[in-house]
Amino acid sequence: MLSSKADDLACKVRSKDQRGLARVLSMVENGHPLAPPILHSLFNPERSSLTIGITGYPGTGKSTLTNRLITYYRRHGCKVGVIAVDPTSPFSGGALLGDRVRMQEHSTDPGVFIRSMGNRGHLGGLSGTTRDALEVFAAASYDPVLVETMGVGQAEVEIASLADITLLVLVPGLGDEVQTMKAGIMEIGNIIVLNKADRPGIEQLEMFVNASLDLIPDQTARPSVIRCSALSGEGIDKLTDAIVSCVSLGTGRKIIARRRTKLILRSIIREKGRELARKHVSDRYGSVEGAVESILQGKTTPYEIGELLSGFLTNKRENDHERNRD
Amino acid sequence: MLSSKADDLACKVRSKDQRGLARVLSMVENGHPLAPPILHSLFNPERSSLTIGITGYPGTGKSTLTNRLITYYRRHGCKVGVIAVDPTSPFSGGALLGDRVRMQEHSTDPGVFIRSMGNRGHLGGLSGTTRDALEVFAAASYDPVLVETMGVGQAEVEIASLADITLLVLVPGLGDEVQTMKAGIMEIGNIIVLNKADRPGIEQLEMFVNASLDLIPDQTARPSVIRCSALSGEGIDKLTDAIVSCVSLGTGRKIIARRRTKLILRSIIREKGRELARKHVSDRYGSVEGAVESILQGKTTPYEIGELLSGFLTNKRENDHERNRD
Repeated sequence: MLSSKADDLACKVRSKDQRGLARVLSMVENGHPLAPPILHSLFNPERSSLTIGITGYPGTGKSTLTNRLITYYRRHGCKVGVIAVDPTSPFSGGALLGDRVRMQEHSTDPGVFIRSMGNRGHLGGLSGTTRDALEVFAAASYDPVLVETMGVGQAEVEIASLADITLLVLVPGLGDEVQTMKAGIMEIGNIIVLNKADRPGIEQLEMFVNASLDLIPDQTARPSVIRCSALSGEGIDKLTDAIVSCVSLGTGRKIIARRRTKLILRSIIREKGRELARKHVSDRYGSVEGAVESILQGKTTPYEIGELLSGFLTNKRENDHERNRD
Repeated sequence: MLSSKADDLACKVRSKDQRGLARVLSMVENGHPLAPPILHSLFNPERSSLTIGITGYPGTGKSTLTNRLITYYRRHGCKVGVIAVDPTSPFSGGALLGDRVRMQEHSTDPGVFIRSMGNRGHLGGLSGTTRDALEVFAAASYDPVLVETMGVGQAEVEIASLADITLLVLVPGLGDEVQTMKAGIMEIGNIIVLNKADRPGIEQLEMFVNASLDLIPDQTARPSVIRCSALSGEGIDKLTDAIVSCVSLGTGRKIIARRRTKLILRSIIREKGRELARKHVSDRYGSVEGAVESILQGKTTPYEIGELLSGFLTNKRENDHERNRD
């Protein structure tokens, strides 16, 4: 599957060449045709590098927390990768830039590699890019790799969940109802971080979170709840301890590898599936837009096209069957 | 495409038979094999029935607003359909039930048909169910059909956006930052409803919302902002006027029909595409789980499987080409 150029770039990533790493990340982000063979070469289901997702509403101090974690892991001699997911929107751009400035202190440290990922096209695209970038960072021996997302929409949660362990960051005073009522929000974090723990309302928040966690049907999957202050650094040690026990006790490397592999495969199936279906529709109607025209003219319906796509599948299988009999 | 049984059920829906309608909605929800031919028969890209999505954070009074809109449209002689989207979660179930009780006053009115849709399986499933249920309601001459969702996650926004017009409900005091910082949240509503307008903080909220809307690049698509109090009923007339002008001035029936058709087709392409890709993977590895095993054993990678799916597509097209030359 590997061309010599893809092979060369994969080698550069593995040998920790920073310019090679940057180049491959750009290829992943731009959907370069060499990206799949490079990723195929770099992928290791049992990689030891841990990826940590950090998610939560804006204003919960995610960037400050990320910054603290970078400092902590650097002190322990780790090379740290960071993916900062920036959905480009007129409503978030400004504030986001301000946040990211806090990470600048690490930008001259060669042991830290920070990469911002923009929202190119649809959200599925950004999720695919993050998924692949995590594998590239891991192959270049960055351990851990932190993924920080904006907000807690479905897309952001999905992106953060691509990591091996997800931290959900909550703070007192942002409105407990809003923070926790969102369907299933508590189910997305392996660790719930109660940040800004020096603020009033921390007791109520912790009680509320614990009461909500009591409702989880499978209590063996109950996330740990850690109070900390990213600003002062208090509680960061407890948090990193919780991350370690999350790996060793809670889940284990093998289970993490299986979960990660499933997630990546499922997401690639979704991506390629849409591509396949679009292609079939285009083959028949010239383009998806052409199919829309046919529907508007009353010649077909989206449901008939859906049945055609299912039927195509059945025919294909029958053809394969024929071929096997030859 | 129609079997006589599907034809019979489609007729019942069109002739406004309530039991037939309920039955078809259940078939749609359960993925019954007759659902696609029935939907094919009922689908009308230029249907006159208007569908209205209502979305916003919990606690913003969406159910009370829905209730008001039902009352308003009933007074004007309309038959009103309601789809209440309930993502089943231990963290939302209780509160939700309480909210929905408010709609009970309409439950004995034969001109109102309320249907709760649960989150069966993954979120894509619920979105597909809502998409199809809207077409069924429209075919049974319910006009308007209201879709009320929980929260403002990506999935909820997607579901509400399946409607022709979307109302985004905000309230003073829920934390302006949280309400509007979420990437692009303001872009999802055709009309922004500032509910609980009698509460303190309404002025600031309105200023904040307008300042955010000033940033939208295309100001012709700027949503209108309507203050109201769903509880007292004040401002509901202004809201329904805004809905009317949204249809007649802002977009027009033809543009709505085109947008709706595109959305439905795109969502069916996504759904069937995943099905197709899963099938191909299963054909090769026995099951998706079998592919995961192969990856964990180091025999392949998700990226190689992705390339196989792309390659399958290319081969298929080549085969078609061969066939055309015969």
